[in-house]
Amino acid sequence: MLIVMRASATEEQTSAVKEYVTSRGFTIDVIETDERTMIGVLQDVTPLRGLPIDSLSGVERVVSITHPFKLASRDFRPVDTVVKSAGLAIGGHGIALIGHVTSIPQDHAYLASVGSALKRLGFSALRVDWDDCMYGGLSDFERRSLTNVREKTGLPILAEVISSEQVELVEAYAAVLLVGAQSMYGSALISRVGQSRKPVVLERGLSATIEEWLLAANSIIAEGNLNVILCEHGIRAFETREILDVNAVPALKQLSHLPVVVDCGQAAPNKQSACGIAKAGIAAGADGLVVDVYDASRTTQQRQQQLSIDDLRELVPVLGKLAAAMGRKLSPI
Amino acid sequence: MLIVMRASATEEQTSAVKEYVTSRGFTIDVIETDERTMIGVLQDVTPLRGLPIDSLSGVERVVSITHPFKLASRDFRPVDTVVKSAGLAIGGHGIALIGHVTSIPQDHAYLASVGSALKRLGFSALRVDWDDCMYGGLSDFERRSLTNVREKTGLPILAEVISSEQVELVEAYAAVLLVGAQSMYGSALISRVGQSRKPVVLERGLSATIEEWLLAANSIIAEGNLNVILCEHGIRAFETREILDVNAVPALKQLSHLPVVVDCGQAAPNKQSACGIAKAGIAAGADGLVVDVYDASRTTQQRQQQLSIDDLRELVPVLGKLAAAMGRKLSPI
Amino acid sequence: MLIVMRASATEEQTSAVKEYVTSRGFTIDVIETDERTMIGVLQDVTPLRGLPIDSLSGVERVVSITHPFKLASRDFRPVDTVVKSAGLAIGGHGIALIGHVTSIPQDHAYLASVGSALKRLGFSALRVDWDDCMYGGLSDFERRSLTNVREKTGLPILAEVISSEQVELVEAYAAVLLVGAQSMYGSALISRVGQSRKPVVLERGLSATIEEWLLAANSIIAEGNLNVILCEHGIRAFETREILDVNAVPALKQLSHLPVVVDCGQAAPNKQSACGIAKAGIAAGADGLVVDVYDASRTTQQRQQQLSIDDLRELVPVLGKLAAAMGRKLSPI
Amino acid sequence: MLIVMRASATEEQTSAVKEYVTSRGFTIDVIETDERTMIGVLQDVTPLRGLPIDSLSGVERVVSITHPFKLASRDFRPVDTVVKSAGLAIGGHGIALIGHVTSIPQDHAYLASVGSALKRLGFSALRVDWDDCMYGGLSDFERRSLTNVREKTGLPILAEVISSEQVELVEAYAAVLLVGAQSMYGSALISRVGQSRKPVVLERGLSATIEEWLLAANSIIAEGNLNVILCEHGIRAFETREILDVNAVPALKQLSHLPVVVDCGQAAPNKQSACGIAKAGIAAGADGLVVDVYDASRTTQQRQQQLSIDDLRELVPVLGKLAAAMGRKLSPI
Repeated sequence: MLIVMRASATEEQTSAVKEYVTSRGFTIDVIETDERTMIGVLQDVTPLRGLPIDSLSGVERVVSITHPFKLASRDFRPVDTVVKSAGLAIGGHGIALIGHVTSIPQDHAYLASVGSALKRLGFSALRVDWDDCMYGGLSDFERRSLTNVREKTGLPILAEVISSEQVELVEAYAAVLLVGAQSMYGSALISRVGQSRKPVVLERGLSATIEEWLLAANSIIAEGNLNVILCEHGIRAFETREILDVNAVPALKQLSHLPVVVDCGQAAPNKQSACGIAKAGIAAGADGLVVDVYDASRTTQQRQQQLSIDDLRELVPVLGKLAAAMGRKLSPI
Repeated sequence: MLIVMRASATEEQTSAVKEYVTSRGFTIDVIETDERTMIGVLQDVTPLRGLPIDSLSGVERVVSITHPFKLASRDFRPVDTVVKSAGLAIGGHGIALIGHVTSIPQDHAYLASVGSALKRLGFSALRVDWDDCMYGGLSDFERRSLTNVREKTGLPILAEVISSEQVELVEAYAAVLLVGAQSMYGSALISRVGQSRKPVVLERGLSATIEEWLLAANSIIAEGNLNVILCEHGIRAFETREILDVNAVPALKQLSHLPVVVDCGQAAPNKQSACGIAKAGIAAGADGLVVDVYDASRTTQQRQQQLSIDDLRELVPVLGKLAAAMGRKLSPI
Repeated sequence: MLIVMRASATEEQTSAVKEYVTSRGFTIDVIETDERTMIGVLQDVTPLRGLPIDSLSGVERVVSITHPFKLASRDFRPVDTVVKSAGLAIGGHGIALIGHVTSIPQDHAYLASVGSALKRLGFSALRVDWDDCMYGGLSDFERRSLTNVREKTGLPILAEVISSEQVELVEAYAAVLLVGAQSMYGSALISRVGQSRKPVVLERGLSATIEEWLLAANSIIAEGNLNVILCEHGIRAFETREILDVNAVPALKQLSHLPVVVDCGQAAPNKQSACGIAKAGIAAGADGLVVDVYDASRTTQQRQQQLSIDDLRELVPVLGKLAAAMGRKLSPI
Repeated sequence: MLIVMRASATEEQTSAVKEYVTSRGFTIDVIETDERTMIGVLQDVTPLRGLPIDSLSGVERVVSITHPFKLASRDFRPVDTVVKSAGLAIGGHGIALIGHVTSIPQDHAYLASVGSALKRLGFSALRVDWDDCMYGGLSDFERRSLTNVREKTGLPILAEVISSEQVELVEAYAAVLLVGAQSMYGSALISRVGQSRKPVVLERGLSATIEEWLLAANSIIAEGNLNVILCEHGIRAFETREILDVNAVPALKQLSHLPVVVDCGQAAPNKQSACGIAKAGIAAGADGLVVDVYDASRTTQQRQQQLSIDDLRELVPVLGKLAAAMGRKLSPI
């Protein structure tokens, strides 16, 4: 349900409408355009039906959203959503670069070293995959690595959650939660991250249609969390690696108000492909990129698609030029 | 087989080696780098084995190519192939825009009108699909349309061939032949276009792996026609439309010396997607784009992904900026 | 177009209607049911429209077929088509076993030896793949092998055609032509086999939908050849081998009147899978099986999915029991 | 780890080895063959390495399993696993028929009525999908329906679990838990059902390879629950419905000791296809079938692939004959 206020509505009238809805237990999304205010209601609105919302002062009309993935649709929110958290903004004019660090060597300074290099290159966040903290919480090593990188760089951390029990644990150290491709259909986890106050990166399931993906996003929003970022990272077809569906970016931009990022690693057999996908992602209109990185001075390459800091020194300027060609820029450092 | 001449080889030595090979019935590809000359032998080289080619004057070494798609591989030809024909060049510094015209209305001036508009926008070729000339040759209307567009624009024509019998017919009016996705596995047609002196655009089969595609390209070259252009236009997966495999572009650039173009229509459900794919294609490194076009002042849109001349007026400048960001430029008008 | 005669129509009336249609250059399919005769017109019937066929004596009504793959559809031919040729019958009560022989060793007696063994096991045809006769006709060795097997067994031969030029050559020795998966979209070849008087096995393209497959079958029939056998042999998905779409059998039986066979080799990684697919094929309702075979006493296994004569001695009795469970039987020896 | 006892080992020796392992906190799988006893250790055996198990009396040798999905592999358990629960046995000589009931009308007697009819037809279990009990437990209506069907038929109930929190709730009324295709990659749920004492039907993920599927089964067994039943029900390819991978049945039978059932609904567009898949499943070697059913006298068909009791009266005898042809029989009533 979308409540469209009159252009002439006063602040008091708008506040009264907000209060009317929130006091009944609903979460709202307030959309301010140049002209008017709109109030979206995130949850199932059946209990609101029959109430005289359209006759409250200042209300122009009440729009009922019939799209199957309604809360994720452009019909529900005509303006682009910008997800903000801990200094990170995804979805606006800037394009966010996110470094993805895996197979972290037993070196307390590693994460801080990679993080500093990435920050200098203009990256705005760090996705960290620990090999073993899935259930038991962070080890001393992991805790210290995170403290180090935070102190040195201040970069917000993205981390994957694979079960609802684990969400609280990960919220303690991550600014952004990530639901991986293999969990996209997992309704318990989807509900749980919907109740979180942290933004959620939602990867597309390996064989999920765009509609199924937006339905999962809708379920997160319906729990009250509008801060969903869609991440295209490849679908299963007949080749040995996943195929990056580059058309998902313009397709989502038409169907949904949510920001879209492209993961450059999953579908890339090697560095050249990772770079090609990164460039194509920006040109297709993505709001951010997730790039597999490693620091060649401190560890060896673990996966073919990982880019070294030196590789990034070559790539990022080209990405900057492509962003400019698209009338955008890489997010500020 | 690749015969690498010494850097110090004289022109006479090189000519003698060429003569040695061609006089035995083989077609050669002469590759001149800054430093030296290399002579590739296109056909099956079994009859050459045992001959003392490596002891001819000026020969440094003879490299036998073991790659399954050898003649299409980078091993065979270390430099990028630039396909040239009738003023068109695909594969060098420039990026070629090719307009694809279908469902041509009964209007003798239509093709010339679209062609003139495209030429002004910097397009370098026109792909024309007649609905009914598959077997019987061109109708008067088609002939006149072609004459008109040729006189007004001089743009080279690309046309599809779907059977070996039809090749001669199409060669009479097209500067470039096109083997469509559904014919990629058709060995008779592949052999036949290999014997043509016209360049060949080879679309990827709907479920062809990159290796199978390069094997088909190899078969064309093995007949003596090195002027092959690979066209990625989407593969079959679980979504209703084909999925453009954007990674095919950097993947092919690593594996092959052949130019690569991206078809922006097959995988695009609508205009926005066609534009997104066009931009992504350039950023991924494509040497050209095929874009479905129509002239809104003379006919109605027949397919959702067709762009009008007005749409192109908005799109082409962005493509130009993206090309510049990639250190390239759109092919000159 | 389907012309339904009255139940009371006389033979003379029926003959007159047939003559009326064929004298105008059309090929007809005469369907005799217990009750009445129906006359199907195979080609594009536009020139017949407007003619007073429905007022000819004995005609009850004229049904226009609107299905996209009309001539291949059940609407066009309500009874099952039985394809008969050289003693082979596919599509009736019996289930035909077809042995597929590849990589034939240089042994004149090999084919006759395999053929004899297969004939004793109840097979009704032999598919022979020569490695090198694609264009140049049969070698002496191939000719002698065929003579031997024909003399010893009388089994009809199936052979693949990959180009329209090759059809005449193959017709000279094969009772049944086969259009392989990679040629299914090849319209020149499809037209050409439609003009043949030999039956055609039409394999499904690797990524062809069932509708596209029936459209190709329709094109063969539209040229006048109703003797089309559909062969499901696996589609491309994300596993390394093709996936046999077993549901294609009941799906085709509902949509089409044409017989359906299952190729047990393409989607089978090994013998156990080939046997499993063979059994499943019969239970799903297939009218025949194509099985990769070799004679272990005269050559070694070339592909994992090939069954030896000994393997078949175990398998065929189980297939016979499954056929009986389905109310059918393996075709008579 | 698999501990193979000597053929001559005494019961005391075997008991001592079992005690040695279980007293260290491990779960074991005791495999009795005609000849000897083998003791499989289900969990990660790192803590057992270095212990002198191979020198305990009666031990012939200790086999370390290196297969990636080791506990699910034939190497680990050379004999077929038969999963038994509440009178149900899946994996032995019999073939189990499981009715799948969805969209249950508001009729307390519905489930009992369907269950009685199915029991008379020889079905051995009932899969029940409630629309709304996912999180909150059973409603009064659901509870009463279950009591009714249990009293009238005694059929064991299968029910889906979609989150680890929900497992305890479902265990209270279901004899067998089911992990659906969309949850196959969900590691929290997989672990949790591994800790259950109820058998688990594990559906294949929509784009899961056979290896990934067996890895998920391995994870369940590694938690101590060997009673895993694999359910093939279709994979995503380019057709609108899923494609049943019939070859998965023989492929799994070679790779794994676990029983395999085929779901006849997911990949079937209608009744004829559901019947075709059911028959093919038995012929391919499946140990059971899951069939969508409804009672036409009490409700209307909700999905095209649902079979009525009358449809089953025709189908089941054919399934019985096919089972006999395979040397098996439908599980006893």
